[in-house]
Amino acid sequence: MEVKLSLFGFGNVGKTVARVLLEKEAFFRERYGVEFKVVSIADTSGTVWLPEGIDLREALTVKETFGKLSAWTNDYEVYNFTPKEAVQEIDADIVIDVTNDKNAHEWHLTALRDEKAVVTSNKPPLAFHYAELREEAEKRNIPYLFEATVMAGTPIITLLRHGLRGDTVGRIEAVLNATTTFILSEMEKGLDFDDALKEAQKLGIAERDPSGDILGIDAGYKATILHCLAFEPITFDMASVKGIVEVTPGEIERAKAKGKTIRLVATIEEGRIVVGPKEIPKNSPLAVESHENVAVIKTDLLGKLVIKGAGAGLKETASGVVSDIVMAALMMR
Amino acid sequence: MEVKLSLFGFGNVGKTVARVLLEKEAFFRERYGVEFKVVSIADTSGTVWLPEGIDLREALTVKETFGKLSAWTNDYEVYNFTPKEAVQEIDADIVIDVTNDKNAHEWHLTALRDEKAVVTSNKPPLAFHYAELREEAEKRNIPYLFEATVMAGTPIITLLRHGLRGDTVGRIEAVLNATTTFILSEMEKGLDFDDALKEAQKLGIAERDPSGDILGIDAGYKATILHCLAFEPITFDMASVKGIVEVTPGEIERAKAKGKTIRLVATIEEGRIVVGPKEIPKNSPLAVESHENVAVIKTDLLGKLVIKGAGAGLKETASGVVSDIVMAALMMR
Repeated sequence: MEVKLSLFGFGNVGKTVARVLLEKEAFFRERYGVEFKVVSIADTSGTVWLPEGIDLREALTVKETFGKLSAWTNDYEVYNFTPKEAVQEIDADIVIDVTNDKNAHEWHLTALRDEKAVVTSNKPPLAFHYAELREEAEKRNIPYLFEATVMAGTPIITLLRHGLRGDTVGRIEAVLNATTTFILSEMEKGLDFDDALKEAQKLGIAERDPSGDILGIDAGYKATILHCLAFEPITFDMASVKGIVEVTPGEIERAKAKGKTIRLVATIEEGRIVVGPKEIPKNSPLAVESHENVAVIKTDLLGKLVIKGAGAGLKETASGVVSDIVMAALMMR
Repeated sequence: MEVKLSLFGFGNVGKTVARVLLEKEAFFRERYGVEFKVVSIADTSGTVWLPEGIDLREALTVKETFGKLSAWTNDYEVYNFTPKEAVQEIDADIVIDVTNDKNAHEWHLTALRDEKAVVTSNKPPLAFHYAELREEAEKRNIPYLFEATVMAGTPIITLLRHGLRGDTVGRIEAVLNATTTFILSEMEKGLDFDDALKEAQKLGIAERDPSGDILGIDAGYKATILHCLAFEPITFDMASVKGIVEVTPGEIERAKAKGKTIRLVATIEEGRIVVGPKEIPKNSPLAVESHENVAVIKTDLLGKLVIKGAGAGLKETASGVVSDIVMAALMMR
């Protein structure tokens, strides 16, 4: 079965998704009977569109050589579509959003109305428009999948959606942002907040504008998405969010002296989302290190469930995106 | 939507499944739009069958008062069906196997051929006949679900089936049997193997005939099932299995002196299953306590993923069975 993909976003995650589709072509064919054909790729410079399928190897070379797809003028037409126009114009089975477009819910809805599946790693559409998107997807029975929005490819979304159907969730406690874990770990080694942040930026762990991470907004988006799945739809403005900018070396030291560690913890209960720095015993499952994320889920039947895995990284995020692409392909068969 | 269930097995797990179906009736209706109607219940004494639906509260009372369903003669007809006859005779949407019948694959196949979904917590059918059962289910597009066979309701099966579709699994290391964990923990407190086993039996953690647990067979069945999901179908006779009966107090002490602990560990790689006692560092995710099970899954894209949760217990096992019942109901809609 041939499945036509339309890829929006060709930064680090988008390129990694393309690389996985290319390198694991035989795996997808043999294991799932699926052949993926990428019919369009869009970055901020323009949209490359070829109904017969784009040569991913070439696309990656152009992007890496020139930094933008619009430089690719010898074989391919480059279009100046808005994302919405691109969704409408381009014939595809699955629309993949690995952009940071805050208004992407608009073209996600366009895709769903057009009976195209959507796979997204982009969080704001879900954190602000979950109810509308889910309703549109369910009404038309079209896959709307978002595994990579929370804990990268660690399958917390699949687990909550499909793995605990008889259970009633009571509470989720989770560490959902790896940048803050890195900064807090560096502070434990003696750096103050500003120096720890600079170190994170130097290593490419924090972005040049780190506010989304250090103010707790990224963790808040993710906690909102988990709430929508475990309980009922809610929006980010209902979350009480505090970042780690006010954590002092003194607080870090006091926690350490008690055998504890500070992490940015999200607590999610029905109708209530709280994100903020919290003292955690060193032997708690929440005391993760490095780029690991963790969620501790408490339910009525199963009791306590822990899922822990990568919460950041390119291959790790692509894992979630590609898992959803395969799932969408199989669901539409 | 009304869904007709045929329950095979009315021991501790079967009774708990019935209790969950009864107590969470409103939850299933409101959350999934599903009404379950149990049309038959079988224990070793006979099969109670009522197409209009059995009163679960009464069934539980009869079973708890008299120890067998055949005592229930005032309102209900009790039939002497073999499981295969019961599957053929009784009109049901989902057949639920919570028995220990080693030959249950025969009537699982009967059910699938009859277009009835199967939900099972019974391991041997999968450990010996996975390929045949899966083929039959896929050919007819009928759900064949078995979450509760491994790690009770902890959704390791869902995770491997649906959560990692783009990843290639390299290796799984797991602690899959809670009885052996209990015995090894008691030995760490100073008991020898025989006394630790007796303690486990006294508390109802080990069965009167504990061989399935202590010889590693139960863990071997589960490891075989994980292999079938993560790699290709295989049968239990391919597994290399060693139990914990030869673990000596001396070995326990030596491990302890090195800051380690001994657990019955299953290692699963493509074409290779090894189950046996293994020294584990105390801070390893494999160093679980009590009734917790854990699996550490290594893959090409995601890296390392840990899932940890209850591996035994009645509500905990019912969690997996009921999750599958809901899933099967939704898939057949």
